[in-house]
Amino acid sequence: MKNVLILGGDGYLGWPTAMFLSSKNYNVTVVDNYFRRKICLDKNIKSLLSNPDLIERVKIWNNKTGKEIKVVIGDLTDIDFTESLFNGSTQYDWSLTNSNNKPETVIHFAEQPSAPYSMIDSEKSNFTLVNNIISTNNLINSIKKNNPEIHIIKLGTMGEYGTPDIDIEEGWLNIKHKGRSQKFLYPRQASSIYHTSKIMDTDLLWFAVRTWKLKVTDLMQGPVYGIFTEQTEIDNNLSTIFNYDEIFGTVVNRFITQAVIGYPLTVYGKGNQTRGYINLVDSLRCIEIAVRNEPKTGELRIFNQISETMSVNQIAKKIDIVCKSLGIKTTIENKLNPRIEKEDHYYNPKYQALKDLGFKPNYFNEHIITKIINEVNKYKHKINKDVIFNGVQW
Amino acid sequence: MKNVLILGGDGYLGWPTAMFLSSKNYNVTVVDNYFRRKICLDKNIKSLLSNPDLIERVKIWNNKTGKEIKVVIGDLTDIDFTESLFNGSTQYDWSLTNSNNKPETVIHFAEQPSAPYSMIDSEKSNFTLVNNIISTNNLINSIKKNNPEIHIIKLGTMGEYGTPDIDIEEGWLNIKHKGRSQKFLYPRQASSIYHTSKIMDTDLLWFAVRTWKLKVTDLMQGPVYGIFTEQTEIDNNLSTIFNYDEIFGTVVNRFITQAVIGYPLTVYGKGNQTRGYINLVDSLRCIEIAVRNEPKTGELRIFNQISETMSVNQIAKKIDIVCKSLGIKTTIENKLNPRIEKEDHYYNPKYQALKDLGFKPNYFNEHIITKIINEVNKYKHKINKDVIFNGVQW
Repeated sequence: MKNVLILGGDGYLGWPTAMFLSSKNYNVTVVDNYFRRKICLDKNIKSLLSNPDLIERVKIWNNKTGKEIKVVIGDLTDIDFTESLFNGSTQYDWSLTNSNNKPETVIHFAEQPSAPYSMIDSEKSNFTLVNNIISTNNLINSIKKNNPEIHIIKLGTMGEYGTPDIDIEEGWLNIKHKGRSQKFLYPRQASSIYHTSKIMDTDLLWFAVRTWKLKVTDLMQGPVYGIFTEQTEIDNNLSTIFNYDEIFGTVVNRFITQAVIGYPLTVYGKGNQTRGYINLVDSLRCIEIAVRNEPKTGELRIFNQISETMSVNQIAKKIDIVCKSLGIKTTIENKLNPRIEKEDHYYNPKYQALKDLGFKPNYFNEHIITKIINEVNKYKHKINKDVIFNGVQW
Repeated sequence: MKNVLILGGDGYLGWPTAMFLSSKNYNVTVVDNYFRRKICLDKNIKSLLSNPDLIERVKIWNNKTGKEIKVVIGDLTDIDFTESLFNGSTQYDWSLTNSNNKPETVIHFAEQPSAPYSMIDSEKSNFTLVNNIISTNNLINSIKKNNPEIHIIKLGTMGEYGTPDIDIEEGWLNIKHKGRSQKFLYPRQASSIYHTSKIMDTDLLWFAVRTWKLKVTDLMQGPVYGIFTEQTEIDNNLSTIFNYDEIFGTVVNRFITQAVIGYPLTVYGKGNQTRGYINLVDSLRCIEIAVRNEPKTGELRIFNQISETMSVNQIAKKIDIVCKSLGIKTTIENKLNPRIEKEDHYYNPKYQALKDLGFKPNYFNEHIITKIINEVNKYKHKINKDVIFNGVQW
């Protein structure tokens, strides 16, 4: 099976992806600088679940499954570190000790992933831009120099598109203008510095594909929800980082956590903001489809990675109904929107290409909501309601 | 007259703009970190002309004209420095010592301006991205915090558009798709990391305009040529930085310098690469038009700032003809293209908005070419042909 390098392998998606691919016998190495753990420490934000560090987790994974995941700790904004992952000079020596371990696929999650974090102040705005752009640029330069055949899979975001008044296509748009035509990247305009940094990543990767014929897949993902995967259920200490705070907690996970402790479901503004969502397990399945289906040399392949679209009101209502059926008292509360965003807008994204490659989506239904609620409920005593809102706004 | 802050006031455009606006009685302050001088020192690239540092030049300017240009030296990637320009805490204290000096217009030239420099290696690629994006982001954050009414004029580049197969409009494109329509930024795809960093600047400024209602003008400028302005001619020591090397020298200035020393006019590849060009004097006139014509609050106004389009072959031929008429022997030589770019392509940009506001372009004609040749010829003894090509390629 392929050798896969997962950058950002300690994250909400990174670690479950590592176990998922390892369970399918890919040779997986995870790389991380523990950025998110450090920020969570600084801000006293705790994951709801138990997350030993990567070195400990891969030991548990090995004990439980007999499979090996390798770990490299380092910061990808350091060009020497990034290059060492590809030229055989790292402590974890791909190219010299075992040539079969040379990476063939790199999954790049190693970015500051929070829109609210990027909007806190100038310093965090700058950090987000530099971290996300330079890690991507270093990755491009290292691969170009050492092995341009490596398949880069970048986690993009549907947020790059914003909420345009026309249908959102899958990455590209053929534009006819004054009797001529040209295929362009679908125009992007995002609503946070984080999302804007992801537009910039796309610009860099598209430049690299055009210029140096790299092979890139961009997964335009919607907000992910969920807490467990088949692999996290093997052992409590194999759980993913699960945040429910205003910085790293995305809306579905946050609402469910709020519901469990009787905190109102806080809809920002009118609640008609509509986005594409995807279950954690589905996200891993899509990523594996991308690993298996490489683009051609010199191709940037873009998939819209969502299972369905929902408004914030629809999400709140679905959770409310399930909670009531389980005897959990919930209320829905409209809150002054702390973000600058359209609260009423057209939203019609296309998301067909992954389905054409075999992806069968799960939907945000009673069964799944119940399962997440039950899981979160086990850790109810650990929930700190003080971190749910602390006034991040823009 | 308006108080104008010129960021990058030591550069090829920055310094002539400062004198031009000062001559028209704007209150001008220049800001620079001498980046370009430092790189020229490191790489042994010399300006053809005499360029005393800013402190000396503003003294000469004052002696010759009685007008005052103020100088602040500092690095805009330092948020504290950038903010000090707007909150009155700098050594040059806008807000406290003289409230009439508060900046009303900021002209942002403070970027690493060379495509070849950005392509030398990973470090310079990263430097270009960080310098250009963070200086712009700091400017946005400082203005948002201290005075959102300040008009930001950013020097963009026609290179952001690349060479699409459809007409290039002025910044925006109204896209009709499946019966609906949306106005987007005209899709951008550039051919160097430098040009890509300028796309990112546009993304940041457009985000700031949408989110915080800033007032921004983006001048999508083509390569500038020329050596003198009415103000540089007052004193030799008021000249602009004039580079003719492969890093900072743009094609017209480089070709004329090559012609003067009998070095072949080195056309990259087929020479059908077509771009929009503008004379240095015209560039200053356009910038003043932008200063006088502010966009509305919450508007991003975009002008394509060129006077005409020409292919590299056309430029070489025009220079060749003028040289021959002056008795200078020239040859045109096609050189293996050191860049990855299309050598045959459609190119039809619109550039009407500045003309509608009164801009009357000069063209690259015999008169102008002769005048530049005569000026360069005065410094013929200083030309170092070893810096014309040193093998930068991508």
